[in-house]
Amino acid sequence: MSKIRIGIVGYGNLGRGVQLAVKQNPDMELVGVFTRRDPSTIQVNDAAVGVYLVEDIKDFQDKIDVMILCGGSATDLPEQTPQIAQWFHTIDSFDTHALIPEFFNKVDEVAKVSEKVSVISVGWDPGLFSLNRLLGEVVLPQGNTYTFWGDGLSQGHSDALRRIEGIKNAVQYTLPVKDAVERVRSGKLPSLSTREKHTRECFVVLEEGVEQAGIEEQIKTMPNYFADYDTTVHFISEEELETNHSGMPHGGFVIRSGVSGANDQQLMEFSLKLESNPNFTSSVLVAYARAAYRLGLSGQFGAKTVYDIPFGLLSPKTAEQLRAELL
Amino acid sequence: MSKIRIGIVGYGNLGRGVQLAVKQNPDMELVGVFTRRDPSTIQVNDAAVGVYLVEDIKDFQDKIDVMILCGGSATDLPEQTPQIAQWFHTIDSFDTHALIPEFFNKVDEVAKVSEKVSVISVGWDPGLFSLNRLLGEVVLPQGNTYTFWGDGLSQGHSDALRRIEGIKNAVQYTLPVKDAVERVRSGKLPSLSTREKHTRECFVVLEEGVEQAGIEEQIKTMPNYFADYDTTVHFISEEELETNHSGMPHGGFVIRSGVSGANDQQLMEFSLKLESNPNFTSSVLVAYARAAYRLGLSGQFGAKTVYDIPFGLLSPKTAEQLRAELL
Repeated sequence: MSKIRIGIVGYGNLGRGVQLAVKQNPDMELVGVFTRRDPSTIQVNDAAVGVYLVEDIKDFQDKIDVMILCGGSATDLPEQTPQIAQWFHTIDSFDTHALIPEFFNKVDEVAKVSEKVSVISVGWDPGLFSLNRLLGEVVLPQGNTYTFWGDGLSQGHSDALRRIEGIKNAVQYTLPVKDAVERVRSGKLPSLSTREKHTRECFVVLEEGVEQAGIEEQIKTMPNYFADYDTTVHFISEEELETNHSGMPHGGFVIRSGVSGANDQQLMEFSLKLESNPNFTSSVLVAYARAAYRLGLSGQFGAKTVYDIPFGLLSPKTAEQLRAELL
Repeated sequence: MSKIRIGIVGYGNLGRGVQLAVKQNPDMELVGVFTRRDPSTIQVNDAAVGVYLVEDIKDFQDKIDVMILCGGSATDLPEQTPQIAQWFHTIDSFDTHALIPEFFNKVDEVAKVSEKVSVISVGWDPGLFSLNRLLGEVVLPQGNTYTFWGDGLSQGHSDALRRIEGIKNAVQYTLPVKDAVERVRSGKLPSLSTREKHTRECFVVLEEGVEQAGIEEQIKTMPNYFADYDTTVHFISEEELETNHSGMPHGGFVIRSGVSGANDQQLMEFSLKLESNPNFTSSVLVAYARAAYRLGLSGQFGAKTVYDIPFGLLSPKTAEQLRAELL
């Protein structure tokens, strides 16, 4: 059987993760990496994989089946997904929640015309967590859903720290509040404020001669990012940051706590504990690339989300095998 | 909008659970309960719900959309599902793993001819746990999947105890071995024997004058049921059994432990902690009844499993709502 031919658009953490994930799936092959940078500056360490300019992407229509878009949600994906869906099935991890409906409609319009499948907002949140939020409320319509994130490195919040004048480098971890998690798991249905659910922990390297106190105050009062949370700031050396904080762990859990018909307490929980956030997200993208390819074969074109895709399409196994081996 | 009209076949624990679960879903209504017993002996405590003989079921083709089959896998469902799929969409919880492929094919043949949808093997295992076993291996192709059950009451094992001469009444709990669970969660990939994964705990009420020692020996050496496990037997009074062991709790977890592309340790876990096993299973059946009804409207007839059904069809919300509110 011929392999599903994959292309990657954008070669950052996520793109490199997709390259690695494709290698774990024998029914797929990576054909090319597309970039806005000078292709000659990009090392993919695989002679079988070409590196090309993203502006040449449409010349690959007979060489690649699914393009996995690894750019950011702020500026890359809003432009790239609708464009590339003209020529290829696409998978992306668009995660600007408020703009998802508008993004979906725009992509759907393009993909229906081009007869392609575009699965948007894939990953673990949005993605696997979204699936579990839905499952919780359909199985236990009377109850509450709680999403907790962490322990994990937040890229956006780390960036916000680095933009502060006087900060040389920094990382930020999001931590679920243990007591809140325990209250939820024990079947209570607490109303939890932002501050009660998560704390934020910052590890900061200062430029030489900068005062700690002023920076700490600036961080803790930063609106949207830190002001609504209990935030701890640690000042550390550049070496310590390198040694102890260069990984990208993350995770979290979706808990549905509710009652079934005779007021029976029922608890559903889905959790992730990830050593590498980008490499896990990439693995999810790759599984959904398989589903997109198959939906394409069966003519179900247009934009899709994880809610539209039966799990069976994610697996290289046949439906018969799945029923016999996994059900 | 008119409601989805539900029928229940078999009015035991599961059937009563379905009745309660339908009440939690405003887009559905329970129309009738079908039984092999004398209908006049069955109290459903709801004037709007009729009780009928199962042999009259086909007279209800214009009154009921989906029949939820609440019989057992040993003798009821192998006969009832193929028969009732001639006239109605059906949902069942067929759980004899080894016979699922054959059962699926038989039901599929009937449902394709009758233009109905039959979702087989729905519940939490098979069902939600099956979904998570699949998800684990597609996202982390390199890794191991572990399913643990409990703490929970096992109906089959409790029945086996009650069949022993000299035992008046008994219940059996299945308990995951904590140390094994911790080893799995810590990212080790242990090979676990049956004995290493679960223990069994029996609470037994003896007939008057029966010797404990002989019974304990008989239980612990019973093939298939107890011989392969570390089994504990407690002898208690009828009153204690009534007071402390009349519930039907259950639960368990599916853990996928694996590595993504750069050898990063990743852990996925889905867990359930249920005060009432039958009422939770019923709630899952009812959610899939909604999906069956919708698949029927879109002409996708035949037998289905949880692997064939997109989560979006489980929810009363529209696809637009799901994208805006839950993704």
